[in-house]
Amino acid sequence: MIKANNPDLESWIEVSVDSDFPIQNIPFGVATFKNGKTHCATRIGDVVIDLYELAGLGYLDNIGIDDLRVFKQPLLNDFIACGKAAWSVTRERISELFQKDNLTLNEADIDQSVFMHATSEVTMQMPVKIGDYTDFYSSIEHATNVGTMFRDPDNALFPNWKHLPVGYHGRSSSIVISGTNIHRPMGQTKPNDADVPVYGPTRLFDFELEMAFIVGKSTKLGDQISTEDAEDSIFGMVVFNDLSARDIQRWEYVPLGPFLAKNFGSIISPWIVTLEALDPFRVDTPTQDPEVLPYLKYTGKKSYDIHLEVLVQPENGSENKVCHSNFKYMYWNMAQQLAHHTVNGCNVNVGDMMASGTISGPTPESYGSMLELSWKGTKPLKLSDGSERKFILDNDTIIMRGYCKNNVVRIGFGDCITKVLPAK
Amino acid sequence: MIKANNPDLESWIEVSVDSDFPIQNIPFGVATFKNGKTHCATRIGDVVIDLYELAGLGYLDNIGIDDLRVFKQPLLNDFIACGKAAWSVTRERISELFQKDNLTLNEADIDQSVFMHATSEVTMQMPVKIGDYTDFYSSIEHATNVGTMFRDPDNALFPNWKHLPVGYHGRSSSIVISGTNIHRPMGQTKPNDADVPVYGPTRLFDFELEMAFIVGKSTKLGDQISTEDAEDSIFGMVVFNDLSARDIQRWEYVPLGPFLAKNFGSIISPWIVTLEALDPFRVDTPTQDPEVLPYLKYTGKKSYDIHLEVLVQPENGSENKVCHSNFKYMYWNMAQQLAHHTVNGCNVNVGDMMASGTISGPTPESYGSMLELSWKGTKPLKLSDGSERKFILDNDTIIMRGYCKNNVVRIGFGDCITKVLPAK
Repeated sequence: MIKANNPDLESWIEVSVDSDFPIQNIPFGVATFKNGKTHCATRIGDVVIDLYELAGLGYLDNIGIDDLRVFKQPLLNDFIACGKAAWSVTRERISELFQKDNLTLNEADIDQSVFMHATSEVTMQMPVKIGDYTDFYSSIEHATNVGTMFRDPDNALFPNWKHLPVGYHGRSSSIVISGTNIHRPMGQTKPNDADVPVYGPTRLFDFELEMAFIVGKSTKLGDQISTEDAEDSIFGMVVFNDLSARDIQRWEYVPLGPFLAKNFGSIISPWIVTLEALDPFRVDTPTQDPEVLPYLKYTGKKSYDIHLEVLVQPENGSENKVCHSNFKYMYWNMAQQLAHHTVNGCNVNVGDMMASGTISGPTPESYGSMLELSWKGTKPLKLSDGSERKFILDNDTIIMRGYCKNNVVRIGFGDCITKVLPAK
Repeated sequence: MIKANNPDLESWIEVSVDSDFPIQNIPFGVATFKNGKTHCATRIGDVVIDLYELAGLGYLDNIGIDDLRVFKQPLLNDFIACGKAAWSVTRERISELFQKDNLTLNEADIDQSVFMHATSEVTMQMPVKIGDYTDFYSSIEHATNVGTMFRDPDNALFPNWKHLPVGYHGRSSSIVISGTNIHRPMGQTKPNDADVPVYGPTRLFDFELEMAFIVGKSTKLGDQISTEDAEDSIFGMVVFNDLSARDIQRWEYVPLGPFLAKNFGSIISPWIVTLEALDPFRVDTPTQDPEVLPYLKYTGKKSYDIHLEVLVQPENGSENKVCHSNFKYMYWNMAQQLAHHTVNGCNVNVGDMMASGTISGPTPESYGSMLELSWKGTKPLKLSDGSERKFILDNDTIIMRGYCKNNVVRIGFGDCITKVLPAK
């Protein structure tokens, strides 16, 4: 077992039982502190730890990182580029420093305010500079639902779907950190009863419940990554809300795929949880039938049991859980996605983000989008304030949460939140 | 008229009559010199001019750029971010310094070797760090050809095609500078006579003749760019070869668009020619019928008369011109593309690259891809060495050239070259 993952560990920082951030998590993010400085950080309980200040005091020496100014950056890219061994040793060191029985940082003569900040006093930033962003389409339940609604229930999946992890390139510039609000987008749509398209705000504003992984190792053009090596090239994961305008999508997406329907804002949770921290929650990937080509075969448990939920909160209303799903439902695992992405020699870079596609489960309450939950608007959801939702309305807040849990430990991602503002 | 564009100007640097780089061009690029340094540069005739060294000698003072170290960067992004006025004044200053009657730099006591280098002694680099890359599909002839071949000649264009400039997101990491050779990609395809897909090198390797513009001004998420303002947000253009694997494309692209068929390598010409230099070659955009929505309307000449050609050179053979086309054929102009791209509030950044899509003209010899030139392989092209091409073979070199020309001046882009290497 990885030492920092030991479920028996406790920290001298207080951690509530339902916290996403026990000492077994040690995620990485970028935070702006009350003093105005922006550095790389981690979190235990409700305390954000400034890694650059910690390094400045000498506590991160000898962790295999030559230049500790990587933590001074307002982005994690330079730290991530130090490689998998460095991520692991850094996590191990932080674990040691904050364990209950370690008094190094927990003595009267240590000014903890230099490196420890209450979460309420920090602002989280985009943790990485994303090079390229790819969105997969790897949930068989989602693909089947969409195919059933819009095409043919008897042939819901396209012929290629079970042979390769379908994916497409998306827009990195509009991926933003949790807490960023997004205006309802304007665009071109063609109503069913219209002869010509019209211009106006989208009428079918949707979320898509996804997760994304961050590439941790760059490759050269022409190189492939095998499924066996793929996880060494993955730094960690975030919860990902791929906002979508369904009416814009329907009019624009044939034949080259979604474009303006998807690039007006995507929201990520603030903390990147490492694959190492998720290791205790590995599970088998669903059986793949028909058999995949050799370059997509893999061994071992390459999926993760991550509970996911979506809540919709109307203005002045309370949270309504509209979906609970799980990352383990994904038909294609991340190792297969990365192997497929690079099979043609496409190069990837540290900081690239690759999202799963909407994660729907087998039951109606596990569907990961309003499109599916309301079945194209035919089954509106009732909220606790008595209102109904076919799609998302102005001033609704969308909250996504993800966490792993066993009898002892809960490892979570922190809230992924956005409020939908009226069209500009 | 822009002073630097005056067709009567001549430089004290010798410029041959068929050069792409008379003193009226003054393009921008990034070059590595014999001394190992990599700086921003321009070119006149066969001389590459090191802008950082020129600035260091004081010749670029007072051009509206506070910190001339922008030219010390191995990328143009910081210079581009200085804004349109700075681009224009920089171009004007360079024009003045190298005009025939200006002896400032052309005196015996000036060591020109500090800032002037023969093209044969420099290596061109990627001129910008690309944030996001978008590929449009804006040639009506190309879209019609593809629709005719693969769908229905009577309904070759999809219903949305004449109402919006169809586009999709592509991969920025695999866009490389002219002279970079590309291995034939491996991938998954499904032959017509096969029950299941197979893995192997693409059998249908193609080029796509395109041009791309580079975004010169960043916007915030939520902001739109109007067609009227759009050209102020465009720094300049390059010739763009969007390599494509047609068999991979056919199997993967429904429903989310091209992915691995297009992201294994795209080649750009080395010099970014500014919109200002192209100004004398403005022409009307083809008539758009039906009328477009108000946000896509524009005034003035927003297209450019740029001759384009593609040559295929077999190993040990000579160049064969297989296509001559023109950028003016594009149904949608760049101002419309940028206005459409941002109509939903999608933010753009300095250095973003937006390609036109394959530029085919109205006649068979103006088609911009082998797919169209050989009409899906049914009409092989005969090369001068007696060989035939349906698609591109291993060790073929693909050369694309673009230039504007009137009675006095020729403004060109330099060769956009790649050699296709065997699969790894």
